[in-house]
Amino acid sequence: MKAAQYAVIGLGRFGGSLAKELMNLGYEVLGIDKDEEAVEALADKLTHAVVADTVEEDVLKSLGIRNFDCAVVAIGDDIQASIMTAILLKDLGVKQVVAKAMSELHGKVLAKIGVDRIIYPERDMGIRVAHQLVSPNLLDFIDLSPEYTLVELTVPKHLSGKTLKELDLRARFGCSVVAINKQKKVLIAPVADDILSEGDVMVVIGTNSQVESFEKEVNR
Amino acid sequence: MKAAQYAVIGLGRFGGSLAKELMNLGYEVLGIDKDEEAVEALADKLTHAVVADTVEEDVLKSLGIRNFDCAVVAIGDDIQASIMTAILLKDLGVKQVVAKAMSELHGKVLAKIGVDRIIYPERDMGIRVAHQLVSPNLLDFIDLSPEYTLVELTVPKHLSGKTLKELDLRARFGCSVVAINKQKKVLIAPVADDILSEGDVMVVIGTNSQVESFEKEVNR
Amino acid sequence: MKAAQYAVIGLGRFGGSLAKELMNLGYEVLGIDKDEEAVEALADKLTHAVVADTVEEDVLKSLGIRNFDCAVVAIGDDIQASIMTAILLKDLGVKQVVAKAMSELHGKVLAKIGVDRIIYPERDMGIRVAHQLVSPNLLDFIDLSPEYTLVELTVPKHLSGKTLKELDLRARFGCSVVAINKQKKVLIAPVADDILSEGDVMVVIGTNSQVESFEKEVNR
Amino acid sequence: MKAAQYAVIGLGRFGGSLAKELMNLGYEVLGIDKDEEAVEALADKLTHAVVADTVEEDVLKSLGIRNFDCAVVAIGDDIQASIMTAILLKDLGVKQVVAKAMSELHGKVLAKIGVDRIIYPERDMGIRVAHQLVSPNLLDFIDLSPEYTLVELTVPKHLSGKTLKELDLRARFGCSVVAINKQKKVLIAPVADDILSEGDVMVVIGTNSQVESFEKEVNR
Amino acid sequence: MKAAQYAVIGLGRFGGSLAKELMNLGYEVLGIDKDEEAVEALADKLTHAVVADTVEEDVLKSLGIRNFDCAVVAIGDDIQASIMTAILLKDLGVKQVVAKAMSELHGKVLAKIGVDRIIYPERDMGIRVAHQLVSPNLLDFIDLSPEYTLVELTVPKHLSGKTLKELDLRARFGCSVVAINKQKKVLIAPVADDILSEGDVMVVIGTNSQVESFEKEVNR
Amino acid sequence: MKAAQYAVIGLGRFGGSLAKELMNLGYEVLGIDKDEEAVEALADKLTHAVVADTVEEDVLKSLGIRNFDCAVVAIGDDIQASIMTAILLKDLGVKQVVAKAMSELHGKVLAKIGVDRIIYPERDMGIRVAHQLVSPNLLDFIDLSPEYTLVELTVPKHLSGKTLKELDLRARFGCSVVAINKQKKVLIAPVADDILSEGDVMVVIGTNSQVESFEKEVNR
Amino acid sequence: MKAAQYAVIGLGRFGGSLAKELMNLGYEVLGIDKDEEAVEALADKLTHAVVADTVEEDVLKSLGIRNFDCAVVAIGDDIQASIMTAILLKDLGVKQVVAKAMSELHGKVLAKIGVDRIIYPERDMGIRVAHQLVSPNLLDFIDLSPEYTLVELTVPKHLSGKTLKELDLRARFGCSVVAINKQKKVLIAPVADDILSEGDVMVVIGTNSQVESFEKEVNR
Amino acid sequence: MKAAQYAVIGLGRFGGSLAKELMNLGYEVLGIDKDEEAVEALADKLTHAVVADTVEEDVLKSLGIRNFDCAVVAIGDDIQASIMTAILLKDLGVKQVVAKAMSELHGKVLAKIGVDRIIYPERDMGIRVAHQLVSPNLLDFIDLSPEYTLVELTVPKHLSGKTLKELDLRARFGCSVVAINKQKKVLIAPVADDILSEGDVMVVIGTNSQVESFEKEVNR
Repeated sequence: MKAAQYAVIGLGRFGGSLAKELMNLGYEVLGIDKDEEAVEALADKLTHAVVADTVEEDVLKSLGIRNFDCAVVAIGDDIQASIMTAILLKDLGVKQVVAKAMSELHGKVLAKIGVDRIIYPERDMGIRVAHQLVSPNLLDFIDLSPEYTLVELTVPKHLSGKTLKELDLRARFGCSVVAINKQKKVLIAPVADDILSEGDVMVVIGTNSQVESFEKEVNR
Repeated sequence: MKAAQYAVIGLGRFGGSLAKELMNLGYEVLGIDKDEEAVEALADKLTHAVVADTVEEDVLKSLGIRNFDCAVVAIGDDIQASIMTAILLKDLGVKQVVAKAMSELHGKVLAKIGVDRIIYPERDMGIRVAHQLVSPNLLDFIDLSPEYTLVELTVPKHLSGKTLKELDLRARFGCSVVAINKQKKVLIAPVADDILSEGDVMVVIGTNSQVESFEKEVNR
Repeated sequence: MKAAQYAVIGLGRFGGSLAKELMNLGYEVLGIDKDEEAVEALADKLTHAVVADTVEEDVLKSLGIRNFDCAVVAIGDDIQASIMTAILLKDLGVKQVVAKAMSELHGKVLAKIGVDRIIYPERDMGIRVAHQLVSPNLLDFIDLSPEYTLVELTVPKHLSGKTLKELDLRARFGCSVVAINKQKKVLIAPVADDILSEGDVMVVIGTNSQVESFEKEVNR
Repeated sequence: MKAAQYAVIGLGRFGGSLAKELMNLGYEVLGIDKDEEAVEALADKLTHAVVADTVEEDVLKSLGIRNFDCAVVAIGDDIQASIMTAILLKDLGVKQVVAKAMSELHGKVLAKIGVDRIIYPERDMGIRVAHQLVSPNLLDFIDLSPEYTLVELTVPKHLSGKTLKELDLRARFGCSVVAINKQKKVLIAPVADDILSEGDVMVVIGTNSQVESFEKEVNR
Repeated sequence: MKAAQYAVIGLGRFGGSLAKELMNLGYEVLGIDKDEEAVEALADKLTHAVVADTVEEDVLKSLGIRNFDCAVVAIGDDIQASIMTAILLKDLGVKQVVAKAMSELHGKVLAKIGVDRIIYPERDMGIRVAHQLVSPNLLDFIDLSPEYTLVELTVPKHLSGKTLKELDLRARFGCSVVAINKQKKVLIAPVADDILSEGDVMVVIGTNSQVESFEKEVNR
Repeated sequence: MKAAQYAVIGLGRFGGSLAKELMNLGYEVLGIDKDEEAVEALADKLTHAVVADTVEEDVLKSLGIRNFDCAVVAIGDDIQASIMTAILLKDLGVKQVVAKAMSELHGKVLAKIGVDRIIYPERDMGIRVAHQLVSPNLLDFIDLSPEYTLVELTVPKHLSGKTLKELDLRARFGCSVVAINKQKKVLIAPVADDILSEGDVMVVIGTNSQVESFEKEVNR
Repeated sequence: MKAAQYAVIGLGRFGGSLAKELMNLGYEVLGIDKDEEAVEALADKLTHAVVADTVEEDVLKSLGIRNFDCAVVAIGDDIQASIMTAILLKDLGVKQVVAKAMSELHGKVLAKIGVDRIIYPERDMGIRVAHQLVSPNLLDFIDLSPEYTLVELTVPKHLSGKTLKELDLRARFGCSVVAINKQKKVLIAPVADDILSEGDVMVVIGTNSQVESFEKEVNR
Repeated sequence: MKAAQYAVIGLGRFGGSLAKELMNLGYEVLGIDKDEEAVEALADKLTHAVVADTVEEDVLKSLGIRNFDCAVVAIGDDIQASIMTAILLKDLGVKQVVAKAMSELHGKVLAKIGVDRIIYPERDMGIRVAHQLVSPNLLDFIDLSPEYTLVELTVPKHLSGKTLKELDLRARFGCSVVAINKQKKVLIAPVADDILSEGDVMVVIGTNSQVESFEKEVNR
């Protein structure tokens, strides 16, 4: 099966990073930007990189955009260009159109004109970083549902040397350790006798309040 | 114990979202921006929001910035203002200074002048979105180590009705399901007879290649 | 029954003329523009005229826009403002939203976001003036269907003094005179003995080619 | 006889539409604009399209402008360029000079310097659209005289199935139906037994107040 | 008899000098400019000086411009403002409208819209200075007719001590000395025995070629 | 003898007019301006016309400026460029440097750096036009000394048909008629029986107050 | 005796430093700048600091500038303002006018208009720093004459412990040590037995080539 | 031994002067600036001069900057470019990086990122000029230590003809004359009988207050 092809329109910090990661993951990527400098900076890192104004239908056609599996509109600050590009991509029949929204209102317009997936990178990243700031041992987290959360926490000094049994997580906080990254190896579904060392990373699941209570214990 | 206080300097999309989430998490937040419109937009959502130019030492002092537990420099595009603000914050003795970097070089300068934590929101978000694009059922993921990954995957139609035993994940792909979000309830450490339904969300752990193989099966 | 209320957003040449004519027709009109000069110029000619930025939801709400029967987005050159204003108006529940489009693509976006009626004043006026230029005696026209046209033509000198019978329009060109404006009075459904004078205005109906042939005779 | 030649100076939305319609009507058109993009956009739709600054006499001469039957000054926003171009065209002896005015004062200057026909497209279109807005079934209209009007109205549901006799237009409102467009065919000078169906289009003549009364009945 | 009143619109180097000289000559002068600095610089030198935009009819009316005997449009660089102001002044019924033209084409437009007198100060001054440059003893000159000229010449050293008889101007060059300014007194219609001294100023009349020959002798 | 050569720096309205008149008077002229359009407009009217920045010594040298008899700095609005150019011209040894001053202060600087002749064209023209405005029959004038003036006046209707004797100028006003331009011929030193006709032009000499009194009689 | 008063016009990096040092030296200083921020930054460090435009004679007069002993024109980048300010200061009779020149040509103009002292801070500092760069032990230097120099050199390790006699400077290099700064005390006119220690600073006098040879020995 | 090589980045007044002096001192200099004019002005005065943007690592590499002994960042006004260039130079391993700071804060950042030497040319020059202004006979000075100063003073008229013995410097002021520049020759370590003449230049050493007292005597 032929690998999917991606077009990334707008090669700023977000779009450029996205395009490079898609290359890393083994896909073909066409990068497009109005700004020559932005294109040059990525020229030798993408399959193709071209300077083009994507609000012109002829330009998009001549780039063969309709043959791409997915086009990402990652235009930075020009809401009009973002909307115009997105509607042209849908019109030309691109299978999947993903677009970055700069505000709720912008996102609403993108939804109405048929964009398949709308992302808010700065907003989402702001939320993610806020959580990391307030919980110094929190490395990352996933909201499984409005009620359940999975967190990745560094083991602090004051828990070092304890077994999971001693910690008695389930009884005291209600949450479970589903994995421990002990630098050298990763313990999946660890058992009661497994010992935590400072600097290990625990993956813990529970309800929001259970996890929050445990985080406070960890950050104590 | 008194709740920590945060100062967020730069109230653009990223800084604004960060500041609002810190409020949601129950902390006091002082928002600062040079632009009056940006400040007004958040005025009634933060503890305080002021228009100020943070490259002036007197301004920072008069805001009592040294009493904050943490200051986040989330200035959008002005690298000079970002650096100058950060060095002033360190000089004034702010305990923890976090700053957003716009490029590797910018990050390097921030590190040299003593910034405690440097973040690259657009770059990180680009990487995260790239993974989600190439794996349609992938909702989110955490890189536990350079080798191990934890992913959150939607159960596709072709796996609906199967038990974990039938799926035989451990034997076929080497990875483990540590939780299943069945909309109504979350099964932690699910057992062999638990049945997957379309739309359930599995949390799966394994090495990068194990997880990747399973993702391919899911996205089939 | 209470007279309808109109809001006209954008008070340039087109929007200003539209707003004033609605006043002439006996309706209440609220005029809105970002530009103070534009508002001042119409301040004493409309029911109300305010300086406001209509891409802010709060601004629209505070103007009570949802109580208007119809809002016309006549913004001149700022496509983004036009789209954002239109989607806000629809969201706020304005019954009828009419918007001026600056290009086909702009019109397409307006349609997708639910604008009820899209107008292209400059394009339509260009077409209308083109017809008047090529047919010097043509005053105005209405395209009844793709095939039928109704035209308003000045009677030229060389037809002056002739009766409709002598002109024998039906036989020679296939089209009919449905009215003659003889300055002093208007003859509706004129008869065969009615005499044309130079400067009278005929209203003629027929197929496009019939009317075109007759126009050539008139412009001879 | 050789077809007339038109020069259209200023290829914005109005001028561009005018130029294209003149082509559709079978005439030769030279399009001129200072802006390269505007010229390129119409390059393959007009006989000729050139980038030129028309306030230079030598430029106009080198384009052979004096040989054109009619020149239309459709310059968008630059009043000075509009006036200077118009006086040069008159000086060079162009037979008919038509110019778009941006304001009454501009129109007055154009008249003084001898422009043959002055048009106000945005103002006129504003008036036309105002009438259509207040009368939802009104498609188009022609003012025959200060007192008489001819309107094109959609037949509403509540008049569907009625004969003209039942409607008794002449007696009740004083106005006459001179044509009915029944989609499939157009009835010219319809008779008393002709039946109206919803969606048909009537052409009605009468005094302003007669027509207005009937419009109210239609829009009821 | 009441002294005439002048309005000078545009208070740049030319307009400002004109306005001040009119004051010196004993007339009342209203100075008008859009630029506040220009108005302030003349505020205490003119009867009145106001900041105003003269392309607004209401502004001109509120200044009572129609009661002025003469209005001078001395606007520096804005041709549109110059034309618009001039047509408004004529429309409002100002008795005499004088305007400065920036080019031949501008002057032609001003003439067409009815300006009573059109002046080209820089052009005229360029011509005047050219003559002074090429004839070092020429102080000033008046062209009486296309053929006759009157010049004001400094007496050079080599003619010092000569009587008019010795000079024999009439016989040798055909031109006449009509006055001699001998610093202490002015000799009108000087006689043959009057003696020239270096630095005296002669006023000489003759045909262009006669005067030119004498100038060469003087500049020898 | 070789004709003098002039360099004119700054080809605006004043400089351009000066340069063209010097050509008309038979001299060689090099025109210089920073602005390409200004140079092109005069390219075929001067001996040479070049685009150059005259504040660069090397540029002036490469133009061989030191070989010119006279250089005129007619730069329009850039006082710094005017001063810098003038000092370079003096340094390079140009025999005569003439410069246009934009203000008294500018003129003072030019004098200090050794400019040979400083002119104020707009100021002088303002004064000249003021005199013409207040005396409708005044065509031109020369100030012979602070006390004596020579004026050129049109003969008004009410003096038509009178002889100089009847007018008795010397007795009534103290001033003398030194010439009468009778369209067909010019009378120099006219006699008592010469008759004035409407439209003749008199050249009159006298003290300022004598001439002013006579002007009032003429303009009566 | 009353202390001298200084006015410093232009409060950039150079002017601001100059003004502050004059204060340190015990003089009264009036600081003037067009830019409000620049004035505010020094407001509490100078006797007076005002925002003013010094090319206006009235402004300078109202500041009583003629009563100052010395005025320094330290305007940064605006050559025209520098020249205009300087000539006004001279005209107003300021005893000593010092001005910073931005180029040789600028300096030449300043000299011609009578500025008493012209300084080139950036140029002079460039020269000074160049010398320090190429001679790592050179701290500072004074050019006594075109031939003689006095330098301040750090004693390097390889000369530590040596007496002046051992060094035998006079014989080997021809230059003399006139002082040694031994941190704790300064030896003036040191004798043959005085011992140099690493880090001492010698003041050495000699001809340029003598000093240069010794510097090479020191920097060896 | 090969002569050292210098790179000077930023060729404004300071950087340009520094680069030229390094050439005068016999070193190889590469001059770099973003501005083409600045580079051209020095092109034939430096070993190499190139137009380049030094915040691009690739650009610096391609210039072989790591092979230079010393790089001076003399960028004028762009603090960001100054910082970015400096960190890149350190990263690339340039042995000695010297940078000009525009403010204390800027200097602090440069220090943190490892710049070897930070200079404040305008500040230092301001201080130096202040001293010269307040002491008219002071030509130059060196601060040997916080307490000791060496000054270069012109001999005033009232000291002319006196011997050093008569002056009795050591007894009256406590300071010593270490050299006298007598125009024709320089006396090093002058003796008691040496006679001062007006215009000679003395080099005097002493404590700050001793020197200050003597300066007062000299400037009396």
